Amino acid sequence: MQYIAGIDIGGTKMAVSIADRNGPLVRIAEATVKLGTPRAPAEQAVSMLRSACERIGISLSELGAVGVSSCGPFVKHGGLIHLVAPNICGGIGNRGDLLNDWESVPLEQVLREHFTHVAIQNDCVAALAAERAFGALHNEDNCAYVTWSTGIGFGLCVDGRLLHGKNGNAGHAGHMLLTDQSQAQCGCGNYGDTEALASGRNLEVQYGRSPEELFNAVKEGDVHAHAAVVHAAKWFGRALYNVTATLDLRVFAIGGSIWHHHGDWLEPIVREEICSHLPALTQGVQLIRPALDAHVADAGALYLVMPDDWVADWRQLSLWDRIAETEME
Amino acid sequence: MQYIAGIDIGGTKMAVSIADRNGPLVRIAEATVKLGTPRAPAEQAVSMLRSACERIGISLSELGAVGVSSCGPFVKHGGLIHLVAPNICGGIGNRGDLLNDWESVPLEQVLREHFTHVAIQNDCVAALAAERAFGALHNEDNCAYVTWSTGIGFGLCVDGRLLHGKNGNAGHAGHMLLTDQSQAQCGCGNYGDTEALASGRNLEVQYGRSPEELFNAVKEGDVHAHAAVVHAAKWFGRALYNVTATLDLRVFAIGGSIWHHHGDWLEPIVREEICSHLPALTQGVQLIRPALDAHVADAGALYLVMPDDWVADWRQLSLWDRIAETEME
Repeated sequence: MQYIAGIDIGGTKMAVSIADRNGPLVRIAEATVKLGTPRAPAEQAVSMLRSACERIGISLSELGAVGVSSCGPFVKHGGLIHLVAPNICGGIGNRGDLLNDWESVPLEQVLREHFTHVAIQNDCVAALAAERAFGALHNEDNCAYVTWSTGIGFGLCVDGRLLHGKNGNAGHAGHMLLTDQSQAQCGCGNYGDTEALASGRNLEVQYGRSPEELFNAVKEGDVHAHAAVVHAAKWFGRALYNVTATLDLRVFAIGGSIWHHHGDWLEPIVREEICSHLPALTQGVQLIRPALDAHVADAGALYLVMPDDWVADWRQLSLWDRIAETEME
Repeated sequence: MQYIAGIDIGGTKMAVSIADRNGPLVRIAEATVKLGTPRAPAEQAVSMLRSACERIGISLSELGAVGVSSCGPFVKHGGLIHLVAPNICGGIGNRGDLLNDWESVPLEQVLREHFTHVAIQNDCVAALAAERAFGALHNEDNCAYVTWSTGIGFGLCVDGRLLHGKNGNAGHAGHMLLTDQSQAQCGCGNYGDTEALASGRNLEVQYGRSPEELFNAVKEGDVHAHAAVVHAAKWFGRALYNVTATLDLRVFAIGGSIWHHHGDWLEPIVREEICSHLPALTQGVQLIRPALDAHVADAGALYLVMPDDWVADWRQLSLWDRIAETEME
């Protein structure tokens, strides 16, 4: 296999990358298409891969395998993965701002019309795979990758194996219910789940300020903003405690824009919430920074289909780090 | 290997079993010893195994391997499993009725003084292993064994593999926090975790009646008892929902005395609580009865060390079912 491709599908943005054994070759990013038929986002990915191939002078058929890191959840129809992501499909969930009525996106079906070897994983699972292969979770058997950003998601690894579940949806602990006394509602419809209480999107819904505005206000001494953010951090910590009690994990690598920018002062609050319960399981639990932060999704997508004999080189030479340099306008 | 042994360690009762390829040979049960040195429960198990060996005319050294299904949690010291079970060790947790000050029981250390091949698992993990090998969860890749009894515990299987975690404590979702608004306290110290809200022990603490008394009152039309039990069932269902969201499981086999006796009418309440959230993950989730109920712990302990070529016979001939017949007074 000479060339592999990675696709990163988010609710806001889509990116494709192509790499060979010696590292990343090209990356293209666009806003995710959310109009037209339900096939549109998948066809957009193929079209972006075609452009990326042109940039490096190869044909689409030379891509030996395609790895996909996508927002979820997934469902399977006829054994093929469809996206039922509330941030893309207007026909589900309770977001009023999506201008389509899609129930699901037939992602795997469209990709398999063009490629033989396709591997699709939830974005946090792919990120976890990348951090275990190249980054901060190398040789770590009981760990999670957590993103705290617009949404909150988990990739889970127990006993040295990534968890997938019946439809590849393991890690949706962002939709774990943490209280029955909250009016905060998640995009999935739940009241009082982790995302409803702490995600960037729901902080904005609850407090009428973007996470950035809220955290800026904290810096300027706004006590209400400070209380709101501390409250969110406690709920985030509680979700991590619940996952620890359920899975006996040892390390959480926490990414996402909220943690990336504010994790230093949020960490003691989150740690206290975890470690104040069930010491037999929580003692010694570590919160660490991911190594691949900005390009973890691209690296994760590529890793899903990367030949084993490339992986050691990519790790040793930090080749994933060059994804940024291959970005095309 | 001619003979294998199983040890089932509970907070109230301990049982040992010996079996050969053709089935169970002898079983002895006693109240768990909770006085003396912290080694006492482990030494009790060895002493019971010695008695069981005598009954069938073999020596202790003829036991080729010993499997242990034990209440947890576990910690590891020097790579060896110690029990830090709040129902056995008086030096931890907040139970005032234990007359010892043990911090932990050096279970694996004591057993390894007598046996070369020892495998120790949390009781719900061993029960899950037994149900997957011999019972209702055969060929089920994404499933859990749940006990709803004095306590509430989970054994978890994702992608066809049992989950253990860093110290073998995966499945302690009985200590997952479900609300911040409850005065109900668990034996572990948590307020508002699954056990605090729904376990038999905590129902008794909350309502001043044993689960049996409470359920009898329900039958006699006591509306307060009915409300209490429905409340507990909703919380139990919420724990199952949270585990489903986290792990994308398909089937829960529910055992334990509360479900065994009252599951038929509790099931719709629990199912409604699971399925009213996040349909992409909860749709089609099944609640089933375990097949091995009464002797699941013995069968689980034996299974942990059972040679592969015995397993098919034990399954096909339901040999585990004969454990009851081998019981000694």
